[in-house]
Amino acid sequence: MRIVLDAMGGDFAPAVTIAGAVWAARELSEVEIILVGREEVIRQELAKHGTRGLSSPIVHASQVIEMTDKPAIAVKAKPDSSMVVGMRMLKRGEADAFVSMGNTGGVYAAALFQLGRIPGIRRPALSTIYPARTRPIFLLDMGANTDCKPEYLLQFALMGSAYAERVLGIDHPRVGIVSTGEEEGKGSTLVLESYELIKKSGLNFVGNLEGKDIPAGRADVVVTDGFTGNVIIKLSEGIASQLADLIEEEIKSHPISALGGLLAKPAFAKVKRRLDYSEYGGAPLLGVDGVVIIGHGRSNAKAVKTALRVAARAVEQQIVAAIREGIAALSPATEEVDRPEELDVDKILAGREGKGV
Amino acid sequence: MRIVLDAMGGDFAPAVTIAGAVWAARELSEVEIILVGREEVIRQELAKHGTRGLSSPIVHASQVIEMTDKPAIAVKAKPDSSMVVGMRMLKRGEADAFVSMGNTGGVYAAALFQLGRIPGIRRPALSTIYPARTRPIFLLDMGANTDCKPEYLLQFALMGSAYAERVLGIDHPRVGIVSTGEEEGKGSTLVLESYELIKKSGLNFVGNLEGKDIPAGRADVVVTDGFTGNVIIKLSEGIASQLADLIEEEIKSHPISALGGLLAKPAFAKVKRRLDYSEYGGAPLLGVDGVVIIGHGRSNAKAVKTALRVAARAVEQQIVAAIREGIAALSPATEEVDRPEELDVDKILAGREGKGV
Repeated sequence: MRIVLDAMGGDFAPAVTIAGAVWAARELSEVEIILVGREEVIRQELAKHGTRGLSSPIVHASQVIEMTDKPAIAVKAKPDSSMVVGMRMLKRGEADAFVSMGNTGGVYAAALFQLGRIPGIRRPALSTIYPARTRPIFLLDMGANTDCKPEYLLQFALMGSAYAERVLGIDHPRVGIVSTGEEEGKGSTLVLESYELIKKSGLNFVGNLEGKDIPAGRADVVVTDGFTGNVIIKLSEGIASQLADLIEEEIKSHPISALGGLLAKPAFAKVKRRLDYSEYGGAPLLGVDGVVIIGHGRSNAKAVKTALRVAARAVEQQIVAAIREGIAALSPATEEVDRPEELDVDKILAGREGKGV
Repeated sequence: MRIVLDAMGGDFAPAVTIAGAVWAARELSEVEIILVGREEVIRQELAKHGTRGLSSPIVHASQVIEMTDKPAIAVKAKPDSSMVVGMRMLKRGEADAFVSMGNTGGVYAAALFQLGRIPGIRRPALSTIYPARTRPIFLLDMGANTDCKPEYLLQFALMGSAYAERVLGIDHPRVGIVSTGEEEGKGSTLVLESYELIKKSGLNFVGNLEGKDIPAGRADVVVTDGFTGNVIIKLSEGIASQLADLIEEEIKSHPISALGGLLAKPAFAKVKRRLDYSEYGGAPLLGVDGVVIIGHGRSNAKAVKTALRVAARAVEQQIVAAIREGIAALSPATEEVDRPEELDVDKILAGREGKGV
């Protein structure tokens, strides 16, 4: 199996991408990791690691899509960027998966242009692993499609369920839809119509999820439009960070609390670890015709390694074929398919660039 | 000034509503609090308090709208409920404000049927006080209108700004709209169109807010559709509660951390107090033709007292007149006004009942 790693993608690339690749190469003996990016820089980074016995081919790409670049423009303006070159290798069958910690919108655009969609798919969805109470849950769309139709949400449900079952190893994953109340009949028009479609899909549909049900982990797959998904992710990060600050502030405001805080420090560290994204590494862009895993821009080497492992598992478990079959079986609900020229990436991404999604 | 209190509304009514009313009556010498509900029960509760020198008239209402009742149906089926009777007094000018800790959808429906809207208002909005980092912020709509149009969001911005300035005492409140990225041009079609309208409104508009900007308090007034607002509120409560559980679990898992947790207990209590809704008491239903304050169903006596104080301040500061003038000045943007018969409460509330909003 060959996995392309966008060596230039992410806030700390190429240092952490190369470190993560070396780490993954040691752990995943059956995987060849192809490093795409500026050859000289990659060689310099590789030299910092002991790479004896590891084979990691380098494919030179002279350009880099920056975190702040506008996705659709950058992908067209930089045809020799690590992202576009890597994605093209996937398209040509020179690799089985593509992994990047870079500009999320850029990966979305590059995948859409190079790979295209799985037949019948209306909109590819960005997903994320959300640290819920008992175990992480899978949420999509987390920001690609700000304006959705019920058919999109049905497809998100199907793709999310397939991914949770095959790649995350959850039997009969519970699929829920974000709404304003638990009972059927609550929510926006979009949710009401999507609910009807998902209910008839044969998935293990547990119905509406309220906001509080997400951190509580009341479903394995959380389906929502990209606007709400984006607000959920960023709000969750914001609250956790504000709460941590607030607790630290109050603890430090009195010597006895401060001592208590010191003694409880390992417990806080454990909480932080349980909420740590780097344990999950990356999440797929689902619906494009290939395995594409996107990691957090702030990924460390461990997260890069984990993202590569996730990609390997997605290839092994044939996630693309599973979605293809699932969508084909759904055909009555998805008869209306947009022609490629209707897919205006800028409009889908609503002007978002970089990690803005 | 006379304020009607729905003595029967809330999870712990009438015990806490009466306790809160007695407390408020002592503090707010210029306010007469009219208790509406089952007279006998109210008298029993009043007898538990020293009420010498306090004048709190009781108006009997034989019915109660329960927390689980469907709003529009309940309001029609229970014309002698404390909610409907109290709202009718406000309509007739027998009171200056109405306060309830009861079924939120019921209050919405009763207010819409009895009071009607301020001329030009498309949809009344439910609001809430959100405990952000530095000081609480004002968020609307928090769940009444799951499907919104740009004109609604413009009106929410105007009403929220007027309330923040007059009642919360914030000079030139910063108004922001929830979106998926900070820059103009990001977000759903609804947000993009609403952005344009609010930008031209003359309000102190700070533009898009990402999810993380809400707990960080990057605006004083947070405008969003009722679907997103509802998810934001319930998700925030859910995360805070999950995080508290997680921290407790990890702290208790080791004797030294447990000791630390014990020493830091007062700090945790302070954090909890800073996030405590009862400090804010209640938030207005804005856009109806009268001062209506809705408190949390789980309100304690202090929250009831605070809600009554909030109502008194809203009357003093003439919030209804301020909104009326603001909307009249906006008229070009609000030419299209729904006829009353188009306002299907069940549809607006999307089948939500009780505290489900």
